[in-house]
Amino acid sequence: MKQRLGIALGLALALMSLLGGPARAESGYDLWLRYQPVEEDYAAANQVAALVTGQRSPTLDAAALELKRGLTGLFGTPPAQGSAVAADGALVIGTSKSMPAIAALGLPLQGLGDEGYLIRSVSIDGHKATVIAANSDVGVLYGAFAFLRLIGTRTPLANLDVASSPKTRLRVLDHWDNLNGTVERGYAGASIWDWPALPEHVSRRIIDYARANASIGINGTVVNNVNADAAFLTTEYIEKEAKLADALRPFGIRLYLSVRWSAPIELGGLKSADPLDPAVKAWWQSKVDEIYRAIPDFGGFLVKANSEGQPGPQDYHRTHADGANMIADVLAPHHGVVMWRAFVYANDPKIDRATTAYNEFVPLDGKFRDNVVLQVKNGPLDFQPREPFSPLFGAMPRTSLMMEFQITKEYLGQQTHLAYLGTLYEEALKSDTYEHGPGSTVARVIDGSLDHHPVSGIAGVANIGNDPDWCGSIFNQANWYVFGRMAWDPEISARAVADEWVRQTFSNNPAFIAPVVDMMMKSREAVVDYMTPLGLALIMAHGHHMGPGPWDTIGPREDWKAPYYHRADAEGIGFDRVASGYVAQYHAPLKDAFAGVATTPEDLLLWFHHVSWDYRMKSGRTLWQELVAHYRKGVDEVAAMQAAWAKLGDDVDPERYAQVRDFLAIQHREAIWWRDACLAYFVQFSRRPFPEGYKPKYPLSYYEKMPYGASPKP
Amino acid sequence: MKQRLGIALGLALALMSLLGGPARAESGYDLWLRYQPVEEDYAAANQVAALVTGQRSPTLDAAALELKRGLTGLFGTPPAQGSAVAADGALVIGTSKSMPAIAALGLPLQGLGDEGYLIRSVSIDGHKATVIAANSDVGVLYGAFAFLRLIGTRTPLANLDVASSPKTRLRVLDHWDNLNGTVERGYAGASIWDWPALPEHVSRRIIDYARANASIGINGTVVNNVNADAAFLTTEYIEKEAKLADALRPFGIRLYLSVRWSAPIELGGLKSADPLDPAVKAWWQSKVDEIYRAIPDFGGFLVKANSEGQPGPQDYHRTHADGANMIADVLAPHHGVVMWRAFVYANDPKIDRATTAYNEFVPLDGKFRDNVVLQVKNGPLDFQPREPFSPLFGAMPRTSLMMEFQITKEYLGQQTHLAYLGTLYEEALKSDTYEHGPGSTVARVIDGSLDHHPVSGIAGVANIGNDPDWCGSIFNQANWYVFGRMAWDPEISARAVADEWVRQTFSNNPAFIAPVVDMMMKSREAVVDYMTPLGLALIMAHGHHMGPGPWDTIGPREDWKAPYYHRADAEGIGFDRVASGYVAQYHAPLKDAFAGVATTPEDLLLWFHHVSWDYRMKSGRTLWQELVAHYRKGVDEVAAMQAAWAKLGDDVDPERYAQVRDFLAIQHREAIWWRDACLAYFVQFSRRPFPEGYKPKYPLSYYEKMPYGASPKP
Repeated sequence: MKQRLGIALGLALALMSLLGGPARAESGYDLWLRYQPVEEDYAAANQVAALVTGQRSPTLDAAALELKRGLTGLFGTPPAQGSAVAADGALVIGTSKSMPAIAALGLPLQGLGDEGYLIRSVSIDGHKATVIAANSDVGVLYGAFAFLRLIGTRTPLANLDVASSPKTRLRVLDHWDNLNGTVERGYAGASIWDWPALPEHVSRRIIDYARANASIGINGTVVNNVNADAAFLTTEYIEKEAKLADALRPFGIRLYLSVRWSAPIELGGLKSADPLDPAVKAWWQSKVDEIYRAIPDFGGFLVKANSEGQPGPQDYHRTHADGANMIADVLAPHHGVVMWRAFVYANDPKIDRATTAYNEFVPLDGKFRDNVVLQVKNGPLDFQPREPFSPLFGAMPRTSLMMEFQITKEYLGQQTHLAYLGTLYEEALKSDTYEHGPGSTVARVIDGSLDHHPVSGIAGVANIGNDPDWCGSIFNQANWYVFGRMAWDPEISARAVADEWVRQTFSNNPAFIAPVVDMMMKSREAVVDYMTPLGLALIMAHGHHMGPGPWDTIGPREDWKAPYYHRADAEGIGFDRVASGYVAQYHAPLKDAFAGVATTPEDLLLWFHHVSWDYRMKSGRTLWQELVAHYRKGVDEVAAMQAAWAKLGDDVDPERYAQVRDFLAIQHREAIWWRDACLAYFVQFSRRPFPEGYKPKYPLSYYEKMPYGASPKP
Repeated sequence: MKQRLGIALGLALALMSLLGGPARAESGYDLWLRYQPVEEDYAAANQVAALVTGQRSPTLDAAALELKRGLTGLFGTPPAQGSAVAADGALVIGTSKSMPAIAALGLPLQGLGDEGYLIRSVSIDGHKATVIAANSDVGVLYGAFAFLRLIGTRTPLANLDVASSPKTRLRVLDHWDNLNGTVERGYAGASIWDWPALPEHVSRRIIDYARANASIGINGTVVNNVNADAAFLTTEYIEKEAKLADALRPFGIRLYLSVRWSAPIELGGLKSADPLDPAVKAWWQSKVDEIYRAIPDFGGFLVKANSEGQPGPQDYHRTHADGANMIADVLAPHHGVVMWRAFVYANDPKIDRATTAYNEFVPLDGKFRDNVVLQVKNGPLDFQPREPFSPLFGAMPRTSLMMEFQITKEYLGQQTHLAYLGTLYEEALKSDTYEHGPGSTVARVIDGSLDHHPVSGIAGVANIGNDPDWCGSIFNQANWYVFGRMAWDPEISARAVADEWVRQTFSNNPAFIAPVVDMMMKSREAVVDYMTPLGLALIMAHGHHMGPGPWDTIGPREDWKAPYYHRADAEGIGFDRVASGYVAQYHAPLKDAFAGVATTPEDLLLWFHHVSWDYRMKSGRTLWQELVAHYRKGVDEVAAMQAAWAKLGDDVDPERYAQVRDFLAIQHREAIWWRDACLAYFVQFSRRPFPEGYKPKYPLSYYEKMPYGASPKP
């Protein structure tokens, strides 16, 4: 029977391919949940014969449905379904409560917590079986996805003993999605939230979004932009949001909202939004109660206050703590949290922008309520290709801090450039703050273990839109994936995640996996090299942040202009952040190392110091020569990715293959643009020769005059 | 063999359904080109055994590929492919030149022109065969789609003799798509043009867009918004546009651009954009030459000039003809056309906005070059649920006029409301202008036959975006479809098109077709009734044009305010367009009929006259009672659509079924909103009682304060 179905499936797939169906050309819609047939020998050894379930709930149903869908796709045969183990090869899922057979096994579930799971090979009534067990329904769901991942990466299923629990509590996507359906810094089409169709209609896409998130352990979503429209708090929108929350709930995902600080004025007709004004607090109280009536498990608020022109408590001479605590007090009875962003900077050219968040927030340490968590970007500036970790991490022991990563590649080539961010996240999370001596990593700050905080978390600014492939490119999907995996376990390695993503997204052929993982692992450094090597930052063109703009001085604020950051002059280049007071914000021994040019890591050299063009680098090259070498290496790495991909057509469907190929060609063209534009600009100051065999193609004026999106052909 | 493959296909489909593939849940991506299996008895009688092709070209390849894809899907078996007829049941495609067997048949191809096709059952070498023949490759492509449509609508193929040629030359979609990926008045997600990925990458979606257009005969696309960004004319964008044009060319689709009149200033650095300035003309000459070097079959320009703040020739005291002719002269050697929009109106509250385009353009009749075509909206205002036809049609015999319809439903419920626009288009096209006496229909004006113009055409403002279903809803797809079919033949009936669209999009089950076609045929009138009955217009809320706003007086211009249009007062309601001079713009006998209240069609009564609340209508009701009756009828019609759809779940996949069901629920809620808000407003003036059993749910102030998207629950 199995074999006959196998033949039928082969025929079915052949016919689907003939029909031009998804088996031939893949849009990327299925992400890493493709469930394509496994190889024959793996199937023979690992086939799951039956799915055994106990009591039902929406979440347990979601787990069972996903297993049925996944196993049918992977093995070509739908598993039998039952409520008891009757033969070898059963997969038994549930909690001790939902499934007596699991209770009877006496599994060590205590340590798994609320969201963890255990996958173990066991014997039940004399039959070989596998259990997916947890203390909660959502733990079972996470275990189901983990089990499918094991198959997707071709792990033998015979002797499993896997236990996993998330190390952070809040694992959240921040959608910068606007009321009108646009997405700020979105490069993947319109917002996936179809507000005009709500509350009546929730599309299949939303369910698939929830599945994808649950598959990597994401448990929260902030559905609107931090530059928030107050309308998201109206009764009409709360009703729409409640319908979304209903759809996400079975997948363990809580809904959060970004709130506009001045909403009590705009919606409530109050004259003030002063956090100490009782009328203001009463308005928030009433609004929060209304939200919880509609969404009993509502997650809480994300707040961007007194930042880039947004209103906030400082408008009333109150502190960030005053503001956060007022809202936190209102949310606390409902178990909601406040995620308060630390992204603030002053409009004063004499102050180093990188120092401002520390100066503003460290004095408030210990003044925040327990259900407030400060959301801190990984670096002190703004999602650059490389920044040192923000000195706030490790500097506020009495405050819960959560990480804010950007998944959308605002400053890393946006839609088209291949840049796997796993290495960026890993670099930030593994950084040692030395708060309590060596081993005080950022990962341990934000998972709460370093200072014993109950609230911990990671947020990622989503790269998700309505494009057929969700993320604007296939490889951008890897950044959503690795974000979730690292939110679950901040100590997992970027390479391990790349490997499992490639296997599920493309192929388990080792000859394919190795070069593609290699491409991914080198890709972010390539972007650093062709955009901002050696610690440069924020030399992107104003506004769109896509192309090079080291010459850019447009705009009202000094700290929005590129020369403020690179400080190139006849002597050298780089920002003296010893003098600015920034270096002193780190714990020893970092502050000692960063204080000296020779002891600063070269990949951050110009971030910390203004260095002579003739400074001798470890390579033996002068700084100028080294800068040129990095820009050239970045371009060369992209060419190497193109060459690698050119050999890999056999393992990918033509549609996804062509997209990657064409996008790499774009990246190569634009990497050259970056290299040549930046070097044509910096040579004005260095006045030193280009190494032999290299010269920017056009004069600087050409690049300065180029409009957005208009990189020249190589 | 056939039977065995039939079984295999059945199995394949069953498995696909099991796998949760597209056979079960349809996103709508496949539009009306779904090619789902036909019923067994139809297949038995009509199976196409072989596809016979001759010389190849990109367009002939597209035709053959589409036939292969379509026949495989429809009949479950791929047709054999060959170059000669060897048995009964062959389908032979080509031109006399590409296929000698077709030349040998001596078919009457002369009358088909450049784009027409002939489908005929013939005998070749003693074998029964069908030919798809044309004078051009694109004619063959159109014939291929027509042949698949015959199968999709279950026409017996035994004795075919079909000949068809388009009656209009330019059949164009106008995309109001912006450089940044947003779409003005778009309700289907982001733009389908992925500018950042061009010129390197053209996605599958663009090819499917071209296929869909070719299937209904659309032969041009204006890719950017009429509120145009000059950047679309830069060298960098021309290179991107050239790649799009390359992708569209095999499907017979020419690319056009909207141009910003002041581009010579913005891009060329000139001081002026005066059309009579030789430097300005030289700039356009050079730009046009550059475009044609990149796109040899470039279609031409669409221009919105001196309209709603756009620059234009009047800025230099030149006429629209001066402007259009200058550009036309530059395009003429390349056989390009200028589509010059007649959408102009003055900012003078004393002038009836409906009269302005006529007053501005009729004096210019005869002054335009042969390759200029005036693009005139169907009504004199702006794409209202109902307007009389623009009096420009029939008033400019010496000028080519093309129709501008709106496919996107800016004023008809936007994304979610079900409103089939076939009836609106039909009403406009069948309107008699009486230019040369009875029978001088608008259709004959715009197909060029009435006054013997070589250039003729129809443009439709596209409703296409990056949403999975392209149009924001499944039923919105019908409006794209009917636009194309009516552009090909302005005299085809809306009902016939609805019927063929339903068959291809959903089901050939008669028990399904009849009620769904009925819903479609009544749907636009329902919108008229619950939004703007009896000739009301432009009482939508300012800006978004979605909800009711008869009270709306926001904005700087009198003619952007709702009371300017409805003129409700204690006496009555409606706009006296006899006094305004508008009625006189029509030919007799229309101007005589419209001059009298009693002789004006009641569905346009308030458009033409200010009428007493107590005026006795043909129904016997007073005007006030009639107004209330229409608003109520509109809501009731939506309820009837809901009831009809509730019975039709068996013939539609669950995903598309649920979308229609939920969107009808939204439409019902919002129809009630429209009804109650408008009647709560108008009763202030009428001060007459509501008919028994009806009263708006909330007071007027409630509706006036409601934000966008916030219709109350019924």
